[in-house]
Amino acid sequence: MIAASPCIILNEPQMAENIGAVARVMANFGLADLRLVRPRDGWPQLRAWPSASGADWPLDNARVFERLEDAIGDLTLVLATTARPREATLPVATPREAAGQVNAALGQGGTVGLLFGGERAGLGADDIALCQAIVTIPIDPKFHSLNLAQAVAINAYEWRLTQDAAPPPRFGEAPAPAMQAAVQGFHDQLEAELDAAGFFHPPEKRPSMVRNLRVAFGRANLSDQEVRTLRGVVTALSKGRGRVLAKLAAANAQVRRAEGGGP
Amino acid sequence: MIAASPCIILNEPQMAENIGAVARVMANFGLADLRLVRPRDGWPQLRAWPSASGADWPLDNARVFERLEDAIGDLTLVLATTARPREATLPVATPREAAGQVNAALGQGGTVGLLFGGERAGLGADDIALCQAIVTIPIDPKFHSLNLAQAVAINAYEWRLTQDAAPPPRFGEAPAPAMQAAVQGFHDQLEAELDAAGFFHPPEKRPSMVRNLRVAFGRANLSDQEVRTLRGVVTALSKGRGRVLAKLAAANAQVRRAEGGGP
Repeated sequence: MIAASPCIILNEPQMAENIGAVARVMANFGLADLRLVRPRDGWPQLRAWPSASGADWPLDNARVFERLEDAIGDLTLVLATTARPREATLPVATPREAAGQVNAALGQGGTVGLLFGGERAGLGADDIALCQAIVTIPIDPKFHSLNLAQAVAINAYEWRLTQDAAPPPRFGEAPAPAMQAAVQGFHDQLEAELDAAGFFHPPEKRPSMVRNLRVAFGRANLSDQEVRTLRGVVTALSKGRGRVLAKLAAANAQVRRAEGGGP
Repeated sequence: MIAASPCIILNEPQMAENIGAVARVMANFGLADLRLVRPRDGWPQLRAWPSASGADWPLDNARVFERLEDAIGDLTLVLATTARPREATLPVATPREAAGQVNAALGQGGTVGLLFGGERAGLGADDIALCQAIVTIPIDPKFHSLNLAQAVAINAYEWRLTQDAAPPPRFGEAPAPAMQAAVQGFHDQLEAELDAAGFFHPPEKRPSMVRNLRVAFGRANLSDQEVRTLRGVVTALSKGRGRVLAKLAAANAQVRRAEGGGP
Protein backbone atom coordinates (compact mmCIF):
# COMPACT_ATOMS: atom_id res chain seq x y z
CA MET A 1 0.00 0.00 0.00
CA ILE A 2 1.12 3.47 -0.87
CA ALA A 3 0.20 5.77 1.98
CA ALA A 4 1.25 9.11 0.54
CA SER A 5 2.52 10.17 -2.84
CA PRO A 6 3.70 13.38 -4.44
CA CYS A 7 1.38 15.55 -6.50
CA ILE A 8 2.21 16.66 -10.03
CA ILE A 9 1.99 20.36 -10.81
CA LEU A 10 1.98 21.53 -14.43
CA ASN A 11 2.75 25.23 -14.75
CA GLU A 12 1.14 26.79 -17.84
CA PRO A 13 0.75 23.57 -19.79
CA GLN A 14 -0.17 24.16 -23.40
CA MET A 15 -1.48 21.03 -25.07
CA ALA A 16 -4.42 19.13 -23.63
CA GLU A 17 -3.02 15.94 -25.18
CA ASN A 18 0.09 16.34 -23.06
CA ILE A 19 -1.98 16.82 -19.93
CA GLY A 20 -3.77 13.58 -20.74
CA ALA A 21 -0.44 11.83 -21.35
CA VAL A 22 0.76 13.10 -17.96
CA ALA A 23 -2.37 11.64 -16.31
CA ARG A 24 -1.60 8.32 -17.97
CA VAL A 25 1.94 8.07 -16.63
CA MET A 26 0.79 9.25 -13.23
CA ALA A 27 -1.60 6.31 -13.14
CA ASN A 28 1.16 4.01 -14.41
CA PHE A 29 3.25 4.80 -11.36
CA GLY A 30 0.53 5.20 -8.77
CA LEU A 31 0.14 8.98 -8.64
CA ALA A 32 -3.27 10.69 -8.64
CA ASP A 33 -3.09 14.34 -7.53
CA LEU A 34 -2.79 16.58 -10.62
CA ARG A 35 -2.68 20.36 -10.37
CA LEU A 36 -2.77 22.75 -13.32
CA VAL A 37 -1.60 26.35 -13.18
CA ARG A 38 -3.05 28.56 -15.92
CA PRO A 39 -3.53 25.88 -18.61
CA ARG A 40 -3.28 27.75 -21.91
CA ASP A 41 -6.61 26.62 -23.31
CA GLY A 42 -8.54 26.55 -20.06
CA TRP A 43 -9.86 23.51 -18.27
CA PRO A 44 -11.39 21.00 -18.76
CA GLN A 45 -10.24 20.23 -22.30
CA LEU A 46 -11.96 17.21 -23.79
CA ARG A 47 -8.90 16.32 -25.86
CA ALA A 48 -7.05 15.41 -22.69
CA TRP A 49 -9.15 12.36 -21.88
CA PRO A 50 -8.41 10.23 -24.97
CA SER A 51 -4.67 10.63 -24.50
CA ALA A 52 -5.01 9.42 -20.92
CA SER A 53 -6.05 6.01 -22.33
CA GLY A 54 -8.39 5.32 -19.47
CA ALA A 55 -6.45 7.00 -16.66
CA ASP A 56 -9.34 9.38 -16.15
CA TRP A 57 -9.16 9.95 -12.42
CA PRO A 58 -6.21 12.35 -12.34
CA LEU A 59 -8.02 14.41 -15.00
CA ASP A 60 -11.44 14.16 -13.37
CA ASN A 61 -10.01 15.37 -10.09
CA ALA A 62 -7.48 17.86 -11.44
CA ARG A 63 -7.48 21.20 -9.72
CA VAL A 64 -6.83 24.44 -11.55
CA PHE A 65 -4.99 27.42 -10.05
CA GLU A 66 -4.42 30.91 -11.24
CA ARG A 67 -1.17 31.29 -9.34
CA LEU A 68 1.62 28.77 -8.77
CA GLU A 69 1.86 29.99 -5.20
CA ASP A 70 -1.67 28.77 -4.55
CA ALA A 71 -1.09 25.44 -6.28
CA ILE A 72 1.76 24.64 -3.91
CA GLY A 73 0.32 26.26 -0.83
CA ASP A 74 -0.36 23.04 1.07
CA LEU A 75 2.95 21.41 0.20
CA THR A 76 5.98 21.13 2.45
CA LEU A 77 8.45 20.34 -0.34
CA VAL A 78 8.37 21.33 -4.00
CA LEU A 79 10.93 20.15 -6.52
CA ALA A 80 11.23 21.91 -9.87
CA THR A 81 12.10 19.70 -12.82
CA THR A 82 14.04 21.64 -15.39
CA ALA A 83 16.69 20.77 -17.90
CA ARG A 84 18.26 24.16 -17.54
CA PRO A 85 19.36 25.11 -14.04
CA ARG A 86 19.39 28.90 -14.00
CA GLU A 87 21.18 31.27 -11.77
CA ALA A 88 18.87 30.27 -8.92
CA THR A 89 21.11 28.79 -6.29
CA LEU A 90 19.11 25.76 -5.34
CA PRO A 91 20.50 22.28 -4.87
CA VAL A 92 20.29 20.27 -8.09
CA ALA A 93 19.33 16.61 -7.81
CA THR A 94 19.01 13.78 -10.26
CA PRO A 95 15.56 12.19 -10.49
CA ARG A 96 16.92 9.33 -8.42
CA GLU A 97 18.22 11.57 -5.66
CA ALA A 98 15.02 13.57 -5.78
CA ALA A 99 12.91 10.44 -5.38
CA GLY A 100 14.77 9.62 -2.22
CA GLN A 101 14.20 13.14 -0.96
CA VAL A 102 10.50 12.98 -1.82
CA ASN A 103 10.12 9.64 -0.12
CA ALA A 104 11.91 10.82 3.01
CA ALA A 105 9.71 13.90 3.22
CA LEU A 106 6.54 11.88 2.76
CA GLY A 107 7.72 9.43 5.37
CA GLN A 108 8.00 12.28 7.83
CA GLY A 109 4.42 13.33 7.17
CA GLY A 110 5.28 15.99 4.62
CA THR A 111 3.36 16.87 1.47
CA VAL A 112 5.36 16.97 -1.71
CA GLY A 113 4.92 18.34 -5.21
CA LEU A 114 6.85 17.84 -8.42
CA LEU A 115 6.67 20.95 -10.59
CA PHE A 116 6.99 20.96 -14.38
CA GLY A 117 7.02 23.91 -16.77
CA GLY A 118 5.03 24.35 -19.95
CA GLU A 119 6.07 22.80 -23.25
CA ARG A 120 7.54 25.92 -24.77
CA ALA A 121 9.01 28.06 -22.04
CA GLY A 122 9.69 25.61 -19.24
CA LEU A 123 9.97 27.08 -15.77
CA GLY A 124 10.98 30.69 -15.19
CA ALA A 125 13.38 31.84 -12.54
CA ASP A 126 10.48 33.11 -10.44
CA ASP A 127 8.75 29.74 -10.56
CA ILE A 128 11.93 27.95 -9.60
CA ALA A 129 12.47 30.36 -6.76
CA LEU A 130 9.30 29.00 -5.12
CA CYS A 131 10.84 25.56 -4.91
CA GLN A 132 13.27 23.87 -2.53
CA ALA A 133 15.36 22.03 -5.08
CA ILE A 134 15.87 21.48 -8.80
CA VAL A 135 15.61 18.11 -10.48
CA THR A 136 17.56 17.75 -13.70
CA ILE A 137 17.06 14.74 -15.92
CA PRO A 138 20.37 13.66 -17.48
CA ILE A 139 19.55 14.51 -21.08
CA ASP A 140 21.90 14.33 -24.05
CA PRO A 141 23.08 17.94 -24.51
CA LYS A 142 22.73 17.44 -28.26
CA PHE A 143 18.95 17.04 -27.99
CA HIS A 144 17.38 18.27 -24.79
CA SER A 145 13.79 18.77 -25.96
CA LEU A 146 12.14 16.34 -23.56
CA ASN A 147 8.42 15.77 -23.87
CA LEU A 148 6.46 16.92 -20.81
CA ALA A 149 4.88 13.54 -20.12
CA GLN A 150 8.30 11.89 -20.45
CA ALA A 151 9.72 14.21 -17.81
CA VAL A 152 6.85 13.32 -15.49
CA ALA A 153 7.25 9.63 -16.30
CA ILE A 154 10.90 9.50 -15.32
CA ASN A 155 10.32 11.26 -12.03
CA ALA A 156 7.24 9.18 -11.28
CA TYR A 157 9.13 6.02 -12.17
CA GLU A 158 11.97 6.90 -9.82
CA TRP A 159 9.56 7.65 -7.03
CA ARG A 160 7.73 4.40 -7.61
CA LEU A 161 10.99 2.51 -7.25
CA THR A 162 11.42 3.89 -3.77
CA GLN A 163 8.08 2.30 -2.84
CA ASP A 164 9.24 -1.15 -3.77
CA ALA A 165 11.10 -1.88 -0.57
CA ALA A 166 10.45 -5.53 -1.26
CA PRO A 167 11.84 -6.74 -4.55
CA PRO A 168 9.26 -6.74 -7.34
CA PRO A 169 7.45 -9.99 -8.08
CA ARG A 170 9.32 -12.09 -10.57
CA PHE A 171 6.76 -13.93 -12.60
CA GLY A 172 8.34 -15.79 -15.40
CA GLU A 173 11.77 -15.94 -13.91
CA ALA A 174 13.97 -18.83 -14.87
CA PRO A 175 12.44 -22.07 -13.60
CA ALA A 176 13.89 -23.96 -10.68
CA PRO A 177 17.03 -25.58 -11.99
CA ALA A 178 17.19 -29.35 -12.17
CA MET A 179 19.35 -31.28 -9.78
CA GLN A 180 22.79 -31.90 -11.12
CA ALA A 181 22.15 -35.65 -11.23
CA ALA A 182 19.49 -35.08 -13.88
CA VAL A 183 21.78 -32.76 -15.83
CA GLN A 184 24.53 -35.33 -15.55
CA GLY A 185 22.20 -37.99 -16.91
CA PHE A 186 21.53 -35.85 -19.93
CA HIS A 187 25.25 -35.30 -20.50
CA ASP A 188 25.96 -39.02 -20.14
CA GLN A 189 23.35 -39.78 -22.79
CA LEU A 190 24.55 -37.02 -25.11
CA GLU A 191 28.18 -38.02 -24.83
CA ALA A 192 27.40 -41.71 -25.36
CA GLU A 193 25.49 -40.90 -28.52
CA LEU A 194 28.26 -38.60 -29.72
CA ASP A 195 30.78 -41.36 -29.07
CA ALA A 196 28.63 -43.70 -31.16
CA ALA A 197 28.46 -41.11 -33.91
CA GLY A 198 32.22 -40.58 -33.98
CA PHE A 199 31.87 -36.94 -32.97
CA PHE A 200 34.87 -36.77 -30.64
CA HIS A 201 37.93 -36.72 -32.83
CA PRO A 202 40.79 -36.65 -32.47
CA PRO A 203 40.31 -38.73 -29.31
CA GLU A 204 42.77 -36.69 -27.26
CA LYS A 205 40.46 -33.71 -27.66
CA ARG A 206 37.48 -35.52 -26.19
CA PRO A 207 37.91 -34.20 -22.63
CA SER A 208 37.98 -30.55 -23.66
CA MET A 209 35.13 -31.02 -26.14
CA VAL A 210 33.02 -32.63 -23.43
CA ARG A 211 33.90 -29.81 -21.06
CA ASN A 212 32.89 -27.14 -23.56
CA LEU A 213 29.50 -28.75 -24.11
CA ARG A 214 28.90 -28.98 -20.38
CA VAL A 215 29.81 -25.36 -19.86
CA ALA A 216 27.41 -24.15 -22.54
CA PHE A 217 24.50 -26.14 -21.13
CA GLY A 218 25.57 -25.25 -17.61
CA ARG A 219 25.06 -21.56 -18.27
CA ALA A 220 21.46 -22.27 -19.26
CA ASN A 221 20.77 -23.66 -15.78
CA LEU A 222 18.30 -26.13 -17.22
CA SER A 223 15.08 -27.03 -15.46
CA ASP A 224 13.87 -30.60 -15.03
CA GLN A 225 11.44 -30.20 -17.89
CA GLU A 226 14.16 -28.82 -20.13
CA VAL A 227 16.47 -31.69 -19.29
CA ARG A 228 13.71 -34.13 -20.25
CA THR A 229 13.11 -32.24 -23.49
CA LEU A 230 16.79 -32.26 -24.40
CA ARG A 231 17.01 -35.97 -23.65
CA GLY A 232 14.12 -36.41 -26.04
CA VAL A 233 15.96 -34.34 -28.63
CA VAL A 234 19.06 -36.51 -28.42
CA THR A 235 16.97 -39.66 -28.56
CA ALA A 236 15.01 -38.40 -31.56
CA LEU A 237 18.14 -37.39 -33.44
CA SER A 238 19.94 -40.65 -32.76
CA LYS A 239 17.19 -43.27 -32.52
CA GLY A 240 16.46 -42.97 -36.21
CA ARG A 241 20.02 -44.19 -36.65
CA GLY A 242 19.42 -47.09 -34.27
CA ARG A 243 16.31 -48.17 -36.12
CA VAL A 244 18.10 -47.96 -39.44
CA LEU A 245 21.03 -49.92 -38.07
CA ALA A 246 18.65 -52.74 -37.15
CA LYS A 247 17.19 -52.65 -40.64
CA LEU A 248 20.70 -52.68 -42.09
CA ALA A 249 21.61 -55.75 -40.07
CA ALA A 250 18.46 -57.48 -41.26
CA ALA A 251 19.19 -56.52 -44.84
CA ASN A 252 22.73 -57.82 -44.58
CA ALA A 253 21.45 -61.10 -43.26
CA GLN A 254 19.08 -61.26 -46.18
CA VAL A 255 21.96 -60.56 -48.57
CA ARG A 256 23.91 -63.41 -47.05
CA ARG A 257 20.93 -65.72 -47.44
CA ALA A 258 20.25 -64.61 -51.01
CA GLU A 259 23.91 -65.11 -51.90
CA GLY A 260 23.63 -68.66 -50.78
CA GLY A 261 25.10 -68.61 -47.28
CA GLY A 262 23.17 -70.34 -44.53
CA PRO A 263 20.91 -68.22 -42.32
CA MET B 1 31.89 9.97 -25.33
CA ILE B 2 29.44 7.17 -25.87
CA ALA B 3 31.24 4.52 -27.83
CA ALA B 4 28.43 2.05 -28.28
CA SER B 5 24.77 2.14 -27.46
CA PRO B 6 21.82 -0.24 -27.73
CA CYS B 7 19.47 -0.15 -30.69
CA ILE B 8 15.71 0.11 -30.26
CA ILE B 9 13.55 -2.46 -32.05
CA LEU B 10 9.83 -1.84 -32.37
CA ASN B 11 7.94 -4.99 -33.29
CA GLU B 12 4.75 -4.27 -35.26
CA PRO B 13 4.36 -0.66 -34.11
CA GLN B 14 0.98 0.78 -35.02
CA MET B 15 0.94 4.56 -34.78
CA ALA B 16 3.46 6.67 -36.67
CA GLU B 17 3.16 9.34 -33.97
CA ASN B 18 4.43 6.86 -31.43
CA ILE B 19 7.36 5.94 -33.64
CA GLY B 20 8.21 9.63 -33.81
CA ALA B 21 7.88 9.96 -30.05
CA VAL B 22 10.23 7.01 -29.66
CA ALA B 23 12.77 8.72 -31.92
CA ARG B 24 12.52 11.81 -29.73
CA VAL B 25 13.29 10.00 -26.48
CA MET B 26 16.04 8.05 -28.20
CA ALA B 27 17.67 11.36 -29.08
CA ASN B 28 17.06 12.63 -25.55
CA PHE B 29 19.16 9.84 -24.15
CA GLY B 30 21.74 9.50 -26.89
CA LEU B 31 20.38 6.55 -28.87
CA ALA B 32 20.20 6.54 -32.67
CA ASP B 33 19.69 3.05 -34.14
CA LEU B 34 15.96 2.46 -34.70
CA ARG B 35 14.64 -0.75 -36.26
CA LEU B 36 11.03 -1.38 -37.23
CA VAL B 37 9.54 -4.81 -37.76
CA ARG B 38 6.38 -4.83 -39.88
CA PRO B 39 5.12 -1.32 -39.01
CA ARG B 40 1.37 -1.52 -39.43
CA ASP B 41 1.05 1.35 -41.89
CA GLY B 42 4.30 0.80 -43.75
CA TRP B 43 7.34 3.04 -43.69
CA PRO B 44 8.14 5.88 -43.97
CA GLN B 45 5.09 7.56 -42.46
CA LEU B 46 5.21 11.33 -42.68
CA ARG B 47 3.26 11.70 -39.44
CA ALA B 48 6.21 10.33 -37.50
CA TRP B 49 8.49 13.28 -38.11
CA PRO B 50 6.45 16.02 -36.39
CA SER B 51 6.14 14.00 -33.21
CA ALA B 52 9.92 13.56 -33.15
CA SER B 53 10.18 17.33 -32.55
CA GLY B 54 13.40 17.62 -34.51
CA ALA B 55 14.94 14.28 -33.59
CA ASP B 56 14.86 13.31 -37.25
CA TRP B 57 17.98 11.17 -37.48
CA PRO B 58 16.63 8.00 -35.87
CA LEU B 59 13.67 8.22 -38.26
CA ASP B 60 15.76 9.10 -41.31
CA ASN B 61 18.00 6.12 -40.70
CA ALA B 62 15.38 3.68 -39.42
CA ARG B 63 15.59 0.24 -40.97
CA VAL B 64 12.52 -1.84 -41.69
CA PHE B 65 12.43 -5.62 -41.42
CA GLU B 66 9.86 -8.18 -42.38
CA ARG B 67 10.99 -10.62 -39.69
CA LEU B 68 12.07 -9.98 -36.13
CA GLU B 69 14.75 -12.61 -36.61
CA ASP B 70 16.37 -10.45 -39.28
CA ALA B 71 16.08 -7.27 -37.21
CA ILE B 72 18.12 -8.84 -34.42
CA GLY B 73 20.45 -10.92 -36.57
CA ASP B 74 23.58 -8.87 -35.86
CA LEU B 75 22.93 -8.51 -32.11
CA THR B 76 24.58 -10.48 -29.37
CA LEU B 77 22.04 -9.61 -26.66
CA VAL B 78 18.36 -8.82 -27.03
CA LEU B 79 16.17 -7.77 -24.09
CA ALA B 80 12.38 -7.88 -24.41
CA THR B 81 10.49 -5.20 -22.53
CA THR B 82 7.10 -6.51 -21.53
CA ALA B 83 4.76 -5.89 -18.64
CA ARG B 84 3.43 -9.38 -18.89
CA PRO B 85 6.01 -12.10 -18.49
CA ARG B 86 4.46 -15.23 -19.94
CA GLU B 87 5.34 -18.78 -19.32
CA ALA B 88 8.60 -18.11 -21.13
CA THR B 89 11.26 -18.94 -18.61
CA LEU B 90 13.76 -16.16 -19.15
CA PRO B 91 15.35 -14.11 -16.40
CA VAL B 92 13.34 -10.98 -15.60
CA ALA B 93 15.21 -7.74 -14.90
CA THR B 94 14.16 -4.28 -13.84
CA PRO B 95 15.11 -1.50 -16.27
CA ARG B 96 17.94 -0.64 -13.90
CA GLU B 97 19.31 -4.16 -13.81
CA ALA B 98 18.86 -4.43 -17.55
CA ALA B 99 20.79 -1.22 -18.13
CA GLY B 100 23.71 -2.66 -16.22
CA GLN B 101 23.52 -5.81 -18.30
CA VAL B 102 23.35 -3.80 -21.52
CA ASN B 103 26.28 -1.69 -20.50
CA ALA B 104 28.36 -4.69 -19.53
CA ALA B 105 27.64 -6.39 -22.84
CA LEU B 106 28.52 -3.26 -24.81
CA GLY B 107 31.69 -2.85 -22.80
CA GLN B 108 32.74 -6.31 -23.90
CA GLY B 109 32.22 -5.45 -27.56
CA GLY B 110 28.72 -6.90 -27.83
CA THR B 111 25.84 -5.51 -29.85
CA VAL B 112 22.61 -5.01 -27.94
CA GLY B 113 18.97 -4.42 -28.77
CA LEU B 114 15.99 -3.41 -26.66
CA LEU B 115 12.80 -4.93 -28.07
CA PHE B 116 9.35 -3.42 -27.61
CA GLY B 117 6.01 -4.80 -28.77
CA GLY B 118 3.24 -2.98 -30.59
CA GLU B 119 0.75 -0.73 -28.84
CA ARG B 120 -2.10 -3.18 -28.78
CA ALA B 121 -0.73 -6.67 -28.53
CA GLY B 122 2.69 -6.22 -26.98
CA LEU B 123 5.17 -9.01 -27.54
CA GLY B 124 4.12 -12.57 -28.21
CA ALA B 125 5.70 -15.62 -26.67
CA ASP B 126 7.47 -16.40 -29.94
CA ASP B 127 9.01 -12.91 -30.03
CA ILE B 128 10.15 -13.21 -26.44
CA ALA B 129 11.64 -16.62 -27.15
CA LEU B 130 14.13 -14.91 -29.48
CA CYS B 131 15.49 -12.84 -26.57
CA GLN B 132 17.91 -13.52 -23.74
CA ALA B 133 16.05 -11.73 -20.95
CA ILE B 134 12.85 -9.87 -20.11
CA VAL B 135 12.72 -6.31 -18.80
CA THR B 136 9.66 -5.42 -16.76
CA ILE B 137 8.97 -1.84 -15.77
CA PRO B 138 7.51 -1.66 -12.24
CA ILE B 139 4.05 -0.44 -13.16
CA ASP B 140 1.11 0.05 -10.84
CA PRO B 141 -0.96 -3.12 -11.30
CA LYS B 142 -4.09 -0.97 -11.21
CA PHE B 143 -3.10 0.77 -14.47
CA HIS B 144 -0.50 -0.95 -16.55
CA SER B 145 -1.21 0.56 -19.96
CA LEU B 146 2.18 2.17 -20.52
CA ASN B 147 2.69 4.27 -23.63
CA LEU B 148 5.26 2.83 -26.03
CA ALA B 149 7.50 5.90 -26.02
CA GLN B 150 7.37 5.98 -22.22
CA ALA B 151 8.58 2.41 -22.06
CA VAL B 152 11.45 3.29 -24.36
CA ALA B 153 12.16 6.46 -22.37
CA ILE B 154 12.55 4.66 -19.07
CA ASN B 155 14.88 2.06 -20.50
CA ALA B 156 16.88 4.67 -22.41
CA TYR B 157 17.09 6.85 -19.31
CA GLU B 158 18.39 3.97 -17.23
CA TRP B 159 20.95 3.12 -19.86
CA ARG B 160 22.04 6.74 -20.07
CA LEU B 161 22.65 6.77 -16.32
CA THR B 162 25.11 3.93 -16.69
CA GLN B 163 27.17 6.13 -19.00
CA ASP B 164 27.77 8.61 -16.23
CA ALA B 165 28.78 5.91 -13.79
CA ALA B 166 31.99 4.00 -13.39
CA PRO B 167 33.06 1.73 -16.24
CA PRO B 168 31.08 -1.51 -16.27
CA PRO B 169 32.32 -4.53 -14.40
CA ARG B 170 34.06 -7.08 -16.55
CA PHE B 171 32.86 -10.60 -16.25
CA GLY B 172 35.75 -12.72 -17.33
CA GLU B 173 33.91 -16.00 -17.53
CA ALA B 174 31.21 -16.06 -20.13
CA PRO B 175 32.54 -15.97 -23.70
CA ALA B 176 31.48 -13.28 -26.17
CA PRO B 177 27.98 -14.24 -27.30
CA ALA B 178 27.31 -15.09 -30.92
CA MET B 179 25.20 -12.90 -33.15
CA GLN B 180 21.57 -13.92 -33.21
CA ALA B 181 21.75 -14.88 -36.88
CA ALA B 182 24.19 -17.64 -35.97
CA VAL B 183 22.00 -18.78 -33.09
CA GLN B 184 19.00 -18.84 -35.40
CA GLY B 185 20.96 -20.86 -37.91
CA PHE B 186 21.55 -23.46 -35.24
CA HIS B 187 17.88 -23.51 -34.32
CA ASP B 188 16.88 -23.86 -37.95
CA GLN B 189 19.14 -26.85 -38.31
CA LEU B 190 18.03 -28.44 -35.05
CA GLU B 191 14.36 -28.00 -35.83
CA ALA B 192 14.75 -29.35 -39.36
CA GLU B 193 16.47 -32.46 -38.03
CA LEU B 194 13.84 -32.88 -35.35
CA ASP B 195 11.15 -32.57 -37.99
CA ALA B 196 12.89 -35.28 -40.00
CA ALA B 197 13.09 -37.44 -36.90
CA GLY B 198 9.39 -37.04 -36.12
CA PHE B 199 10.16 -35.38 -32.78
CA PHE B 200 7.40 -32.79 -32.89
CA HIS B 201 4.20 -34.62 -32.16
CA PRO B 202 1.38 -33.96 -31.97
CA PRO B 203 1.92 -31.34 -34.71
CA GLU B 204 -0.16 -28.69 -32.94
CA LYS B 205 2.37 -28.71 -30.13
CA ARG B 206 5.28 -27.93 -32.44
CA PRO B 207 5.23 -24.13 -31.85
CA SER B 208 5.42 -24.40 -28.08
CA MET B 209 8.00 -27.18 -28.25
CA VAL B 210 10.16 -25.04 -30.55
CA ARG B 211 9.72 -22.08 -28.23
CA ASN B 212 10.76 -24.06 -25.18
CA LEU B 213 13.91 -25.25 -26.91
CA ARG B 214 14.79 -21.71 -28.00
CA VAL B 215 14.24 -20.34 -24.53
CA ALA B 216 16.50 -22.96 -22.94
CA PHE B 217 19.32 -22.26 -25.39
CA GLY B 218 18.62 -18.51 -25.24
CA ARG B 219 19.42 -18.46 -21.56
CA ALA B 220 22.83 -19.92 -22.30
CA ASN B 221 23.72 -16.90 -24.49
CA LEU B 222 25.88 -19.17 -26.65
CA SER B 223 29.21 -18.06 -28.08
CA ASP B 224 30.16 -18.49 -31.71
CA GLN B 225 32.29 -21.49 -30.85
CA GLU B 226 29.48 -23.04 -28.87
CA VAL B 227 27.03 -22.53 -31.71
CA ARG B 228 29.46 -24.27 -34.06
CA THR B 229 29.91 -27.09 -31.58
CA LEU B 230 26.19 -27.59 -31.18
CA ARG B 231 25.70 -27.57 -34.93
CA GLY B 232 28.32 -30.27 -35.05
CA VAL B 233 26.48 -32.18 -32.35
CA VAL B 234 23.21 -32.10 -34.27
CA THR B 235 25.00 -33.08 -37.48
CA ALA B 236 26.82 -35.93 -35.75
CA LEU B 237 23.66 -37.25 -34.13
CA SER B 238 21.64 -37.08 -37.32
CA LYS B 239 24.15 -37.64 -40.12
CA GLY B 240 25.01 -41.03 -38.72
CA ARG B 241 21.44 -41.78 -39.61
CA GLY B 242 22.00 -40.45 -43.13
CA ARG B 243 25.16 -42.49 -43.59
CA VAL B 244 23.46 -45.63 -42.36
CA LEU B 245 20.50 -44.92 -44.63
CA ALA B 246 22.89 -44.82 -47.58
CA LYS B 247 24.40 -48.13 -46.49
CA LEU B 248 20.91 -49.58 -46.14
CA ALA B 249 19.99 -48.47 -49.64
CA ALA B 250 23.16 -50.05 -50.99
CA ALA B 251 22.42 -53.27 -49.08
CA ASN B 252 18.88 -53.36 -50.40
CA ALA B 253 20.14 -52.96 -53.93
CA GLN B 254 22.53 -55.80 -53.29
CA VAL B 255 19.65 -57.90 -52.03
CA ARG B 256 17.70 -57.22 -55.18
CA ARG B 257 20.69 -58.11 -57.33
CA ALA B 258 21.40 -61.26 -55.36
CA GLU B 259 17.75 -62.27 -55.64
CA GLY B 260 18.02 -62.11 -59.41
CA GLY B 261 16.69 -58.64 -60.27
CA GLY B 262 18.60 -56.27 -62.54
CA PRO B 263 21.08 -53.83 -61.05
